[in-house]
Amino acid sequence: MKITCQKADLVKGVNIVSKAVPTRTTMAILECILIDASSGEIKLTANDMEIGIETIVNGNILERGIIALDAKKFSEIVRKLPENEVTIETDSSFKTSITCEKAKFDIVGKSGEDFSYIPVIPRNQPIVLSQLTLRDIIRQTIFSVADNDNNKMMTGELIEIKDNKLKVVALDGHRVSIRNVELKNDAPDVKVVVPKKTLNEIVKIIDGGIDDEVNIFVTDNHIIFEFDQTTVVSRIIEGEYFKIEQMLSADYETKIKINKREFFDCIDRATILVNEGDKKPIIVNATNNTMSLSISSFIGSMNEDIDIVKEGKDIMIGFNPKFVIDALKVIDDEEINLYMLNAKSPCFIKDDNGSFIYIVLPVNFNNPGAN
Amino acid sequence: MKITCQKADLVKGVNIVSKAVPTRTTMAILECILIDASSGEIKLTANDMEIGIETIVNGNILERGIIALDAKKFSEIVRKLPENEVTIETDSSFKTSITCEKAKFDIVGKSGEDFSYIPVIPRNQPIVLSQLTLRDIIRQTIFSVADNDNNKMMTGELIEIKDNKLKVVALDGHRVSIRNVELKNDAPDVKVVVPKKTLNEIVKIIDGGIDDEVNIFVTDNHIIFEFDQTTVVSRIIEGEYFKIEQMLSADYETKIKINKREFFDCIDRATILVNEGDKKPIIVNATNNTMSLSISSFIGSMNEDIDIVKEGKDIMIGFNPKFVIDALKVIDDEEINLYMLNAKSPCFIKDDNGSFIYIVLPVNFNNPGAN
Repeated sequence: MKITCQKADLVKGVNIVSKAVPTRTTMAILECILIDASSGEIKLTANDMEIGIETIVNGNILERGIIALDAKKFSEIVRKLPENEVTIETDSSFKTSITCEKAKFDIVGKSGEDFSYIPVIPRNQPIVLSQLTLRDIIRQTIFSVADNDNNKMMTGELIEIKDNKLKVVALDGHRVSIRNVELKNDAPDVKVVVPKKTLNEIVKIIDGGIDDEVNIFVTDNHIIFEFDQTTVVSRIIEGEYFKIEQMLSADYETKIKINKREFFDCIDRATILVNEGDKKPIIVNATNNTMSLSISSFIGSMNEDIDIVKEGKDIMIGFNPKFVIDALKVIDDEEINLYMLNAKSPCFIKDDNGSFIYIVLPVNFNNPGAN
Repeated sequence: MKITCQKADLVKGVNIVSKAVPTRTTMAILECILIDASSGEIKLTANDMEIGIETIVNGNILERGIIALDAKKFSEIVRKLPENEVTIETDSSFKTSITCEKAKFDIVGKSGEDFSYIPVIPRNQPIVLSQLTLRDIIRQTIFSVADNDNNKMMTGELIEIKDNKLKVVALDGHRVSIRNVELKNDAPDVKVVVPKKTLNEIVKIIDGGIDDEVNIFVTDNHIIFEFDQTTVVSRIIEGEYFKIEQMLSADYETKIKINKREFFDCIDRATILVNEGDKKPIIVNATNNTMSLSISSFIGSMNEDIDIVKEGKDIMIGFNPKFVIDALKVIDDEEINLYMLNAKSPCFIKDDNGSFIYIVLPVNFNNPGAN
């Protein structure tokens, strides 16, 4: 094989597929990036058997061929080459030379024979989203996916389409995060749970804006993201997702409009007094047009008042400050609305047109350990 | 005690003295920052018994007093307060309230009684340097201080003044880094070895430029840095430093002028093929007007040619690439000169006026393990 391409293009391609290289594996071939120049294009592939990524790099094929190169070393070499044209040439014993200007590296690759290409999956009607929207909806929900895998269904996000309406849901037993998006193009109805890891990697490699599209295909076992010159194939999590409709009761006795920044800063300050795992709640006391927040721990105590606009009853309710902070971090609005029923019912943070809903369960502040 | 000051001033002061708060200690009082408003100024102090730092914060003293506050929590609180005036008030039981706008923290402090103030040391004639110069000379030598403390004298830097000439030396048995500076003001002759940790912290808190001065005082046991409203007192390392004059032989058979960036980039690329602790040398082969660099390890091999201007004999010599890279990183010149005698003698990297000298011992490239 002999190919040439610009260093910048090669770095971009290597960075993209590297997201599917496993950090630890017993199969050495999975630690490689496959360069496949056996047809008319230079295709890079990596595959950890959960996620597979394939991307095309612009360049010239002088001699067709295939080689598998250790991903870590190959990407380090490529990144440190001068900004110029790179030549990659292999011989029949898989010796590979990588040349750029006066620098020449010789490393030994592997035959591509044992490499697991990403599965070929028939495409039906795509779900079309802008790359910006896809990044946003993942970013705005993924923090609610459970960290541990005690419950497999909580380790992914629900992606559901019904009547061209997309709903993304993440939950971990203490909170629920929901984003709703109206699709511009017709899309098939789907309901699929995608692993957190896949979504995390997708966010990192999709860097386009509102005018760049990504096509999503869903099959019985896989979800496929196609964008630019890249294809990402991921397994999905099998099983029945949680019924969330019944959590979305619209009843409330108190509605509070509050400046998001002030609310965030105040809770952020309060968390100084809480050590991780302390389960110390922040206590919200809303009366008239003031919300008083207070927290106390063995380190000390803190309290602060924030101006609010309140409708309905006064309320005193306790929260795990982290869960509120996580939601406030990803809301782009300046003012937000909180809806609460009583001190034992979840608090809803949502906007008027339902594009986002964050549900946070309260903490019993008289006996927080009991939560 | 009751004081008020601007948040930004308080943050700055806390950041400075925090550098002297020990990360682990058996004396809880050392984990505190002392606020001393018992005289006419607000003075913050921290002291880990090796380094003590004292700085004055602008503000108003409404009621004189002293309090010691847990450094970690106090600095977190201060950093997260709104950008406005902060009030710190204590009562007789050391309960301390920190108020800013509508936010109020209550924490419990300690009596300042057991706190170790920084020692009061008589000042004689100061050594005057610009803050920029002090930062530069530390940055350009400190990487050569030994990491382990097998030899106590190698864990610090020599600071020597003779006839108003300042020399700073760091060495670790494989290399020597020297910076020479002509002092503008008269200064006393001194010879002192300052611990690496002190110099590392000094670099972090001295942020002034060429027109901001620092006064340095040296006593039998201490070195003192005075700048802006801050005083840093550090112990010195007792003992006799290495005789370096005898290492500085001016003999050479080969002189090479090389572009620093190209030389650096090439060695940087070569290190991809070397794992930490591998002891694989980079082999430099200078003939005519080309320097050919090559390295080979079990990962692969690399070679690259660089244009040079050579005077004297051809030479082939091996180096630990890290030691060369470390020196090249801190040299600001575009072109540098290498002076070499033979493959077993140290290589000198120095400029014409002797403001810096980096000496790197070669590695036997036929049997690098023997070095």
